[in-house]
Formats: sequence, C-alpha cells, structure tokens
Amino acid sequence: MIKTDLKQTLQHKIDTKTKPLGALGKLEDLAFKIGCIQNTETPKISKPVIVVFAADHGIAAKGEVNPFPQEVTAQMVYNFVNGGAAINVFSKTNDIELKVVDAGVNHTFDAELNIIDAKIDFGTKNYQLEPAMTQAQCADAFTKAGAIVEELQKEGCNTIGFGEMGISNTSSAALLMSYFTKTPIEDCVGSGTGLDPEGISKKAKILTEVYNKYTPKTAQEALATFGGFEVAMLCGAILKAAELNMVIVIDGFIVTAALLAATAIKPEVIENCVFAHSSNEQGHQRMLAFLEAEPLLSLGLRLGEGTGAALAIPLLRASVDFLSDMASFESAGVSNES
Amino acid sequence: MIKTDLKQTLQHKIDTKTKPLGALGKLEDLAFKIGCIQNTETPKISKPVIVVFAADHGIAAKGEVNPFPQEVTAQMVYNFVNGGAAINVFSKTNDIELKVVDAGVNHTFDAELNIIDAKIDFGTKNYQLEPAMTQAQCADAFTKAGAIVEELQKEGCNTIGFGEMGISNTSSAALLMSYFTKTPIEDCVGSGTGLDPEGISKKAKILTEVYNKYTPKTAQEALATFGGFEVAMLCGAILKAAELNMVIVIDGFIVTAALLAATAIKPEVIENCVFAHSSNEQGHQRMLAFLEAEPLLSLGLRLGEGTGAALAIPLLRASVDFLSDMASFESAGVSNES
Repeated sequence: MIKTDLKQTLQHKIDTKTKPLGALGKLEDLAFKIGCIQNTETPKISKPVIVVFAADHGIAAKGEVNPFPQEVTAQMVYNFVNGGAAINVFSKTNDIELKVVDAGVNHTFDAELNIIDAKIDFGTKNYQLEPAMTQAQCADAFTKAGAIVEELQKEGCNTIGFGEMGISNTSSAALLMSYFTKTPIEDCVGSGTGLDPEGISKKAKILTEVYNKYTPKTAQEALATFGGFEVAMLCGAILKAAELNMVIVIDGFIVTAALLAATAIKPEVIENCVFAHSSNEQGHQRMLAFLEAEPLLSLGLRLGEGTGAALAIPLLRASVDFLSDMASFESAGVSNES
Repeated sequence: MIKTDLKQTLQHKIDTKTKPLGALGKLEDLAFKIGCIQNTETPKISKPVIVVFAADHGIAAKGEVNPFPQEVTAQMVYNFVNGGAAINVFSKTNDIELKVVDAGVNHTFDAELNIIDAKIDFGTKNYQLEPAMTQAQCADAFTKAGAIVEELQKEGCNTIGFGEMGISNTSSAALLMSYFTKTPIEDCVGSGTGLDPEGISKKAKILTEVYNKYTPKTAQEALATFGGFEVAMLCGAILKAAELNMVIVIDGFIVTAALLAATAIKPEVIENCVFAHSSNEQGHQRMLAFLEAEPLLSLGLRLGEGTGAALAIPLLRASVDFLSDMASFESAGVSNES
C-alpha cells in the first residue's frame, strides 16, 4: 500500500466510526499519526518502554545553577532501582517497562544492579571552562544509546519513551534550546528543580556567558559543547528509534532539547514523535511551538524522568484501540447525520 | 483523625516525596483531593465504573436542533451493548467497568440485553410545548439513579464516572446551563454532534424561545422542565455518589450541566468531583469556570458517553499510586534542596 492510500484509508476509517466527525479530537490525530508511523490501518502499542538516561554535569559541582546537590543524580538512580521514584510508579500504574541507563553518573554502581551500563565518563566537564565532552564521547553516546534502543526493538517494543535524570541538565537543555531555536538564553532558562527568581537570573547570566564562549558549527558539536551525556544519548536514541520506525514519546524540557538536536541532524525524525505533555519548565512551550508540536497533556509537571511520557501512554493505547475496535456506522447499523 | 490534620498529613506526604516541590502539578492536587474525599492518606481507586444513561428528547423528533435522527439514541445503546462505541473501547483499554442504563429511550429493549432498565418513559415531552417531564418523573429519575449508584458502591466501587447518550441532549444541557449560571442562552449553545454555524443560530433561537416560556422556581423544577431523563438521572446519581463519599469523575457538557443542578440542590457535592476534561462543546469551558473547576485533560473531545471520564481515570490511578508508593527523601536517602 502506498503512503497516500494509507492516509486516505486511515482518515476514512476514523471518519466512519460511530461518533460525530472529529469528536475524538486529538486522539483522532494520534491514531492517524501512529497508523502512518507503523504503516498500517491497525496500529498497535506493543511492549512500551521508558528508558531513563542518567548522567552528571560538570557545572553542577559548584551549585550555582541547581538547588539540589550533584550527588542527587546517583541517589535518584538508586531510587529508580529500588522502585521509589515517580517514573517507577507511573510505569507500573500504566504497565510500561522501565529501563535505567547510567550514561555518565559520577558514581560507580554495583554491576549486579538493574542498571544498563553505558557510562561515557564520571560526569561531563564544566562548560564554563571547556566543552562538556569530546566529539568522540558524543559519538560514543550515540552508538551506545542506539544499541540499547535496537535491543529493545528486537524484544518487541514498538513504542518508546525517554526520560532523564541529571542535576543541572536544565542548563544543558537551555543552552541547546538557545542554539537550535535562536531564542535568547534568558527565555530558555527556567526554575529547573526549584530556583527562585533570583536564582533564575543568576543561572541566565552564567549560561549567557557559557553560550557566548563557543561557536559550535554542527548539531553534534553543540551537543558535545553543552552536554550532557544523557542529553547526547537521548539524541542518539531518538535517531535510532526513528530509523527503526518506532513510535517515540517525547517527554519534557530535556528530552525535547535532545529532539531539537536530533531534528537538526535528521529533520524527518519528528514524523515518529508524539508529544506527551507541555511542561511547566519555562521554555518547553516555546520549544513545542518551534517544533509545531501539539502536546497531549498539560498537567503542570516539571519533573522529567520520563513521567509525562509514562502518563501519556494510556492515550496512545486508547487511540489505536478506537481505530481497531470501534464499530463503524455501517457495521453497527447506526444512522449517520441526516 | 480530624480533617485539618489529614490535610496537613497529606500535604506533608506529597511534599516529601522524591521530587522537587510541586513538580507533579495537577496530580498533586488530585492526590490531595482524593485523599480528602476518602478521608485517608492512602487513597485507592477501587473498581471504577462508568455509568452511561441514555434517553430520548421530545424536541429531537423534529430534527431542528440535531443533525442526527432520534433513532440514533437506541442504535447507540445497541452499539454500547455490542461493545462497539468509543466508551466501550476506552473502558476496556483502561480497565473500567461499563454499565448502560435505559433512562428513557424511545424503544423497548429485550430484557435479556445487558442494559439496566430504569426507563421513566419513552422519551421526554417537547419543551417547546410543555415541560419535558413531570416533577414526579424527575423524582423517580433521582430515586432510580440513586439505587443504581448504591448497588455499585456495595459491590466495591469507590470511583464513578458518568456518561450519557441522547440525541438533542446538548439542548437540554444548554437550557440548564443558562438557568443555573445566568449565562445568555446563545453563549450556552454549541455545535452538539455537528451543527454548522447556521444550525447553531437556529438552535439558539429555538432554545431562547423555550427558555423564555418557563420560570422554574427550583433546581428540580428546572430539570423537569428542560429535561431529559438521562440528565435528571445524572443529577440524582451525582447526589447519591457524593452522599456515599465516592470519587465522582465529571465528563463533558451534559454531565457538567447535571452537576450544576446537583450543586444547586447540595453545593458540597462538588467536593467529591474531579473534572476529567475540557470539552470542545462551546459552553463547557464557561461551566468549568463557573464551578472554578480545573479539568485534567483537554483533548478537543466532544463526544459524551463518558469518554473523557474514562480517559482521565489512569491519571486518578497515577495520583493515588504516587501518594502510596513513591519513596520520600528520607526513605530513599536522597538529599533534599541544599
């Protein structure tokens, strides 16, 4: 079936379900999109997984841009492993598998823990002084993230959401947002895990200096400069998931920053993306507008970890289920508009 | 435990979970609210049910306010019974029990079908000529709906969503909205199942005449005048569910109109309500604003049947699960803000 035919078939199928035309709103667009991604009029959400990439950031050590200390990254990884974080709870509630990846935490985890070891280094360098990582490290992050996604796809996962943990990673994301969307840095900086207005001003000032220090020429160079390892892995994972034709569930501010990098490298990856939610982190709504993306949820979340993605997956299921299982006017013997 | 203590305990529990303060946005408010309703710091969503009340409307026969013919009400009830409607699909996707009630459809259903028979009459009278129902019928609707809710609660359901089916029932809802919120009727009238702008104008003109014909003195009299049977049952069901201290999941335009009547009768019922979504039916957002309600979802739905309620229930589950199952900073050994 060629793509134009499929689009017509999908739209006709949606329009002849027993409901007024368009009455399922965004779920209709979602069903259409997932059908197009999977190239079928009977799409399915199979073995959904959330992959959380965790890493540390050189800038965090000084505590100038983050209210929580750097050690919280490792502590939260233990919390993920022990099932106590928000993403654990929401994944369980919504029957989603959760994978935790050490992308570069400043801590050595016991090999027996349920953590995928893809550590690039023990945290990035501080980009106030030098680029966060080398280009080779960035390439390594892409490769390792791609391998993780490929493995999950081989196990039957066709829908993947991404999350992250990394104290100070809203700073990385703000720098990347500014670079890719040409938005002044002060409009990219928000409260992160809880800065007050004074803290936000200070963060914006520091990040403006960082931003002006470098002139990256490519998306990869921007990623390497502004880090972190988890953001680079998110970008690599998105690129691989799109290549493997998976449905990609985009979470909040950090993941969307990684997507900005991914779309700069390969614009068509966005065709595989559904946008889980609009975060309360200032800047995320601008990113979504830049990408012309319509988020599914707007719950005032600003947590990361992939929590928005986990909460949106029931809507993905509902959309493909209505496409497959709802009766048509004809099959149900229901009169259409008079 | 007295209520003030519980509120403090709940807020403290929410605030000490391993996440930045307030980072779960609306889900925090939701967990707090459900905890208050259930009077516990470990609330649960048990055996959630959606009850769909179906009935016919005298005004529908002329086809002036509705693009679909009146027979669609009965046809859609068969569709519910056969599992082919959107509410069937979403209830199944989200593991919610579905009950279908004949509140007054203009059709006799076989007693062996899986339909709760609470028929008041074969459709209401046309309120262009006379009140939709008698006050005795309205009282009967309250009693029958209350009995259905009570039975479900006895079976272990503590969370109930309501839906409706009734060709022309957006007209009833618009009249009730105008009555209870003192909003001019033209701001209460929308496209329903798909009227064009000309159709909407005509509908507004007809309903203005209807509205001006009557001067109901009480909420019950307004319900009886402007109908329908499913709307009266929704109101009675909401009142009973609040009395039984259940979590009530409010769906779209019609259900919210019934809630307006219920709050006019007993204002505190709103303390038991969570608002599933903001519908695309013009008027619903005004109703929500009137009730100072914050809806969870905004998906552009305008279908009814309880579909918004069914889609919101995973968020209710996620909220109570994070309250019960997430680790605290202390229990997880995670450092709080420095």
